[in-house]
Amino acid sequence: MADSPNCDLKYLSPLQLFERVTEQGEKVRALKAGKAPKDEIDAAVRMLLSLKLSYKTTTGQDYQAGLPPRDLVLINNGTTKEEDEDFVDPWTVQTSNAKGVDYDKLIVRFGSSKIDTDLINRIERAIGQKPHRFLRRGIFFSHRDMDQILDAYENKKSFYLYTGRGPSSQAMHVGHLIPFIFTKWLQEVFDVPLVIQLTDDEKYLWKDLTTEKAYEYARENAKDIIACGFDINKTFIFSDLDYLGTSTGFYRNIVKVQKHVTFNQVKGIFGFTDSDCIGKISFPAIQAAPSFSSSFPQIFNGKENIQCLIPCAIDQDPYFRMTRDVAPRIGQPKPALLHSVFFPALQGAQTKMSASDPNSSIFLTDTPKQIKTKINKHAFSGGRDTIEEHRKYGGNCDVDVSFMYLTFFLEDDDRLEQLKQAYTSGELLTGELKKVLIETLQPLIAAHQERRKQVTDEMVKQFMTPRKLAFEF
Amino acid sequence: MADSPNCDLKYLSPLQLFERVTEQGEKVRALKAGKAPKDEIDAAVRMLLSLKLSYKTTTGQDYQAGLPPRDLVLINNGTTKEEDEDFVDPWTVQTSNAKGVDYDKLIVRFGSSKIDTDLINRIERAIGQKPHRFLRRGIFFSHRDMDQILDAYENKKSFYLYTGRGPSSQAMHVGHLIPFIFTKWLQEVFDVPLVIQLTDDEKYLWKDLTTEKAYEYARENAKDIIACGFDINKTFIFSDLDYLGTSTGFYRNIVKVQKHVTFNQVKGIFGFTDSDCIGKISFPAIQAAPSFSSSFPQIFNGKENIQCLIPCAIDQDPYFRMTRDVAPRIGQPKPALLHSVFFPALQGAQTKMSASDPNSSIFLTDTPKQIKTKINKHAFSGGRDTIEEHRKYGGNCDVDVSFMYLTFFLEDDDRLEQLKQAYTSGELLTGELKKVLIETLQPLIAAHQERRKQVTDEMVKQFMTPRKLAFEF
Repeated sequence: MADSPNCDLKYLSPLQLFERVTEQGEKVRALKAGKAPKDEIDAAVRMLLSLKLSYKTTTGQDYQAGLPPRDLVLINNGTTKEEDEDFVDPWTVQTSNAKGVDYDKLIVRFGSSKIDTDLINRIERAIGQKPHRFLRRGIFFSHRDMDQILDAYENKKSFYLYTGRGPSSQAMHVGHLIPFIFTKWLQEVFDVPLVIQLTDDEKYLWKDLTTEKAYEYARENAKDIIACGFDINKTFIFSDLDYLGTSTGFYRNIVKVQKHVTFNQVKGIFGFTDSDCIGKISFPAIQAAPSFSSSFPQIFNGKENIQCLIPCAIDQDPYFRMTRDVAPRIGQPKPALLHSVFFPALQGAQTKMSASDPNSSIFLTDTPKQIKTKINKHAFSGGRDTIEEHRKYGGNCDVDVSFMYLTFFLEDDDRLEQLKQAYTSGELLTGELKKVLIETLQPLIAAHQERRKQVTDEMVKQFMTPRKLAFEF
Repeated sequence: MADSPNCDLKYLSPLQLFERVTEQGEKVRALKAGKAPKDEIDAAVRMLLSLKLSYKTTTGQDYQAGLPPRDLVLINNGTTKEEDEDFVDPWTVQTSNAKGVDYDKLIVRFGSSKIDTDLINRIERAIGQKPHRFLRRGIFFSHRDMDQILDAYENKKSFYLYTGRGPSSQAMHVGHLIPFIFTKWLQEVFDVPLVIQLTDDEKYLWKDLTTEKAYEYARENAKDIIACGFDINKTFIFSDLDYLGTSTGFYRNIVKVQKHVTFNQVKGIFGFTDSDCIGKISFPAIQAAPSFSSSFPQIFNGKENIQCLIPCAIDQDPYFRMTRDVAPRIGQPKPALLHSVFFPALQGAQTKMSASDPNSSIFLTDTPKQIKTKINKHAFSGGRDTIEEHRKYGGNCDVDVSFMYLTFFLEDDDRLEQLKQAYTSGELLTGELKKVLIETLQPLIAAHQERRKQVTDEMVKQFMTPRKLAFEF
């Protein structure tokens, strides 16, 4: 699956790029006018220069304010730009709101359903235990057909989990863990098979990489995934480059999806253009196919009708909207989905954490000292400018990145609530809140590193070998 | 590989379709004016109606003479239509000339090289035996880099052969045999490995078929191919649907090609449109990949640099022009090619034999009686209208389909020359020439049927199992 580093700007059409440059220019001006911290302004300026370069590479001309690329303006004639709209696709997440993307709006725009108290209660009844903090706290906030999964589960019918990752050279950051932490929990409470796709072919197509390198990253990234604690008897991790050449079912489903999706459709969904390579254009079918159990005959004994549940960040939804559209036309059940919010960058919830910007990210390889320094130096604070003001007016948890991270990683609900009240009232200072976060993350990441050390090449090989899992179908 | 039944009109752009309707209308008028035989006029009218229907399906509007589809005319503004141009692409072969396509022009247009006497002599020296009649008679008439293949061969460096077929429900016709007969000869005289691709995925994408049905056709068609007498120890036949899921090398090469070809390129080469499914758009990479030896690690021991030679009908050249363009960019040698002319329809060399029109074809399943009746009834004659005229002015071998077929199937050069002279002089009548053809084809097809009966499912399985062949690499 795709993450959204800035270097993926090449997906954007000339007009989209033009709009991004314009927006970024406005952002830089606003930051300067607001006397924002120097490193914040610098980062925004770097982003602006990189956007301008992408614009020039794509259009062959320098960016000129107020002069959008001609051909595309003609095509877009008559549409008006919604200034306040958040931008969310598999490669880019951008909002002007420090609280982050407006997820309620996104639910309406994507046509998914909110995970409400009723659904959370139903999950609790079904599994007979407390729902995961990601559900309790709205981190997984949206779904498609989760009620059908529960219907099936309550009727003793099985389903399976599917999630994935686009393997990259960079170490994984804590944000990458979110779908895996949640998927591991789902696997435990529902006791179902899990397949994890590593889209090394996608990385080869989109990046300046050899297939060998992409495959190597897939195997390296598999170690971090395995370190999340998945059950080897219930989990199959696969690289596309490998599994496509070992499965009798996978390619058949890929070609079925490819027959039922036109270029017009992927152009509309993913913004592909005529200059994109045919590999990118047909790739969405490869992310779609694991949604169908017949892609894994070794696990499901060739059965076609096992329902699939996909936990993922909401930016991956376009792939699965497409998949759900195709499913009935190829005689397969639609996959159900659970969508998470984005994991915010250290600098604030306007963008998600990105591995290609080291300052925006806490990596799974960071030392305790690095974690401490990054949080203290970069984590955007919702606190006041002076201690006096902070004591008097209190901090703002809605925009405070340290508090946001604690909602992801601090298990204790009462403690979290106490921190929120203390910070909002001004009793707790920014430095103190950051300290809590540092002390939460350090042992968590150290433990991950410890588990990762114990992942051997042999274990990776076992996880990645197509085989029967501990379930009967 | 694609054959070109009329039902494949959906490949054409609205403008191409418009031009086809216009041309066909002119053809019908000419036939009527020339008082052509009733069945010829009827066939042309049926074709016209089918073209008009396709035009309506594609554009949503009725065909109106002189009113081309608007948008496309704008795009094509400034270009002029060459009325006398032959139309050749992987799905359509059409010419207004009864002698068939102008192959010299095609060589110039495609940028290939003519197989001249020098090259034929060089082949003869290299293999130490008489070149195949298809070479002697210009049936394989064009090539790319055949001299490089001979350089390599003379330096004791090996190469391999690659050919293929798009499996279809219909029985194969004698025209389908041409590349296989020639490939078998090449395999024997050069003693090299051969891979034969059955593009069941292509047929699934283009036709109203299930993957199961397409795969079944592949296995059925494999029997006819095996019946041509290929050496099981030197030949690997594969279905895409199957082999893509069993090879560690095939998909990697496919995705490499897919990374280096844009939608703009396949649009230009194959005429795809935005309404085509992404499977069609990315398919050319699947026909390209077997040109690289690393697609067959089991045969070539993972070696990447074994040169490939592709014997095929010239209409498949667009796939391999694309392949040759990509090859150096992915560090692979360009495949060499040997191009054959088309096998003419019984009704004349204006189109090639098509399995979807039973009257145009002699099938490998036809009985001796059916062969006789079809030739007598449908084979277009270059003879005169009356015996008296024929005796006086002689027949025209250049347009006589029976004579053309004899150039394909009668091995004896002297006999063929005698027939030509006798027919041209008027000494030999059409009926007599047809009798020679009938007596040549009947035993040939009977022998094929006999060999096909001996092809067991077990043999098909063996041919289609990925394995080492009788060569060391």
